[in-house]
Amino acid sequence: MRLAVGAVLACAAVPPEGAAAPAGLAEILAASPAADWRAIDPDDTLYLTLPQGRVVIELAPAFAPNHVANIKRLVRAGFYDGLAVVRVQDNYVVQWGDAQSTHPTGEGRLRLKAEFDRPYGAADPFVALPDPDTYAPRTGFAGDFPAARDPALGRTWLTHCYGMVGAGRDNDADSGGGPELYAVIGQAPRQLDRNVTLVGRVIDGMELFSALPRGRGDIGFYQRPEERVPILGIKVAADVPAAQRAAFRVLKTDSPTFAAVVHNRRFRRDAWYKVATGRIDVCNLPLPVRAGP
Amino acid sequence: MRLAVGAVLACAAVPPEGAAAPAGLAEILAASPAADWRAIDPDDTLYLTLPQGRVVIELAPAFAPNHVANIKRLVRAGFYDGLAVVRVQDNYVVQWGDAQSTHPTGEGRLRLKAEFDRPYGAADPFVALPDPDTYAPRTGFAGDFPAARDPALGRTWLTHCYGMVGAGRDNDADSGGGPELYAVIGQAPRQLDRNVTLVGRVIDGMELFSALPRGRGDIGFYQRPEERVPILGIKVAADVPAAQRAAFRVLKTDSPTFAAVVHNRRFRRDAWYKVATGRIDVCNLPLPVRAGP
Repeated sequence: MRLAVGAVLACAAVPPEGAAAPAGLAEILAASPAADWRAIDPDDTLYLTLPQGRVVIELAPAFAPNHVANIKRLVRAGFYDGLAVVRVQDNYVVQWGDAQSTHPTGEGRLRLKAEFDRPYGAADPFVALPDPDTYAPRTGFAGDFPAARDPALGRTWLTHCYGMVGAGRDNDADSGGGPELYAVIGQAPRQLDRNVTLVGRVIDGMELFSALPRGRGDIGFYQRPEERVPILGIKVAADVPAAQRAAFRVLKTDSPTFAAVVHNRRFRRDAWYKVATGRIDVCNLPLPVRAGP
Repeated sequence: MRLAVGAVLACAAVPPEGAAAPAGLAEILAASPAADWRAIDPDDTLYLTLPQGRVVIELAPAFAPNHVANIKRLVRAGFYDGLAVVRVQDNYVVQWGDAQSTHPTGEGRLRLKAEFDRPYGAADPFVALPDPDTYAPRTGFAGDFPAARDPALGRTWLTHCYGMVGAGRDNDADSGGGPELYAVIGQAPRQLDRNVTLVGRVIDGMELFSALPRGRGDIGFYQRPEERVPILGIKVAADVPAAQRAAFRVLKTDSPTFAAVVHNRRFRRDAWYKVATGRIDVCNLPLPVRAGP
């Protein structure tokens, strides 16, 4: 059978070439012990329902505690219900919510101090990647989110990789809070790192965002109200009856399995690849997610 | 007015903050002399027509002369007519053509030697970027295409950035040729660099690819024939009557204007950005394109 380019990405059924070669990705994940996976806390999970289906977002309270708390408050107050995806800019972001915060009850008007980055201590868990990064002195994973740190600054932050979710803001750094959210649908816009508060990441249903029609207005805004994609509802998973929840587990980035995944992605060795880069970008390493408890 | 995150990407109307600050991107482009732009050769331009509209592709004969010549031969033989986009894998590629090359006249069966990279001499034009890259010792632009080079190897190659177009192949490095093509629609899969022949890039209509429904089959293949997106036709622009051509110009990457663009993207200084990274990734610098002669 003729293999298409990159078939290998999911073609991990290709057997290892020898004892020294790493196993394929599918084999690595299939062999992983249950202890290497972490169930996502339903209290830090959002279900965002579009006409096309449900997007599942894992929140990142360890990096943006105040924004996450406020977004959950807004969700529980019904702030987003009846709002819409208003902007889809190709190779950049989708954006939803109410930039003007015109909600009749005044919800969404709270402005929060920026949570762009935070200090870190020597003991702070961080799974470092070994390769150079264009934008930051160190990249890796913190709490299983893609992240960076700068020892000179003593600061750490989440990185704007594909699928990351953030809180839009005005020119004032402290003008965000959650009424308007966005998700990255293109090449990682790393220039936004430390300029805007990231609050989580999409773990399921990403294609419901990324395949939306692009807006033809300035910077991808939909020009006519009828083009907007309505948000049928947003719920905190913990508020949904247990029987209706979708359980997800993510591979722990401090697990032996994840170390094997990183090695596998850095050194592609199979019948298709001719040259292994031996390198990996923090945003080119999608984090394995499994549906089911 | 409340600005959304990244409004600044297109919000270059924000005035410079002072004499030392770079002008906004829009001002830089508006002030550029005509000599800083290059008209795209109609003989190296493809029009790919989908039901949704027309995708324009600039071919890269300087890097893949044999693949480009063969693709043009296939276009002129009508090989792609009646074929379809068969695969859309989220955050990766769209793929079209006929992997099996079952064309009744035998077209598309020609297999070409790989054109993954090529040697370069000291005099070869290369507009280098100053920042570190995860995957290559040097990145920049060659012939206005994103590219990399390795002085130790003495080789240069095109990089798999968003919108780049390549020729799928089988496990044999020399099994490509053009019957099956792909375009990058997500985070740059740089692990493909030097593993597959890049033949060009999309310069207009990229959103017609990137917003296509994702395939639900293995690695994004459409599962049912009726899901496929038909190719209504592909033409070499030079074969289209001049009156029906769409003219495009690209900013020359060896121009003073492009140097200003790079500086502007590395050091974002306006009312929205709080921290300028001072860095730019070769795949995070979309190349300015203008419609019109």
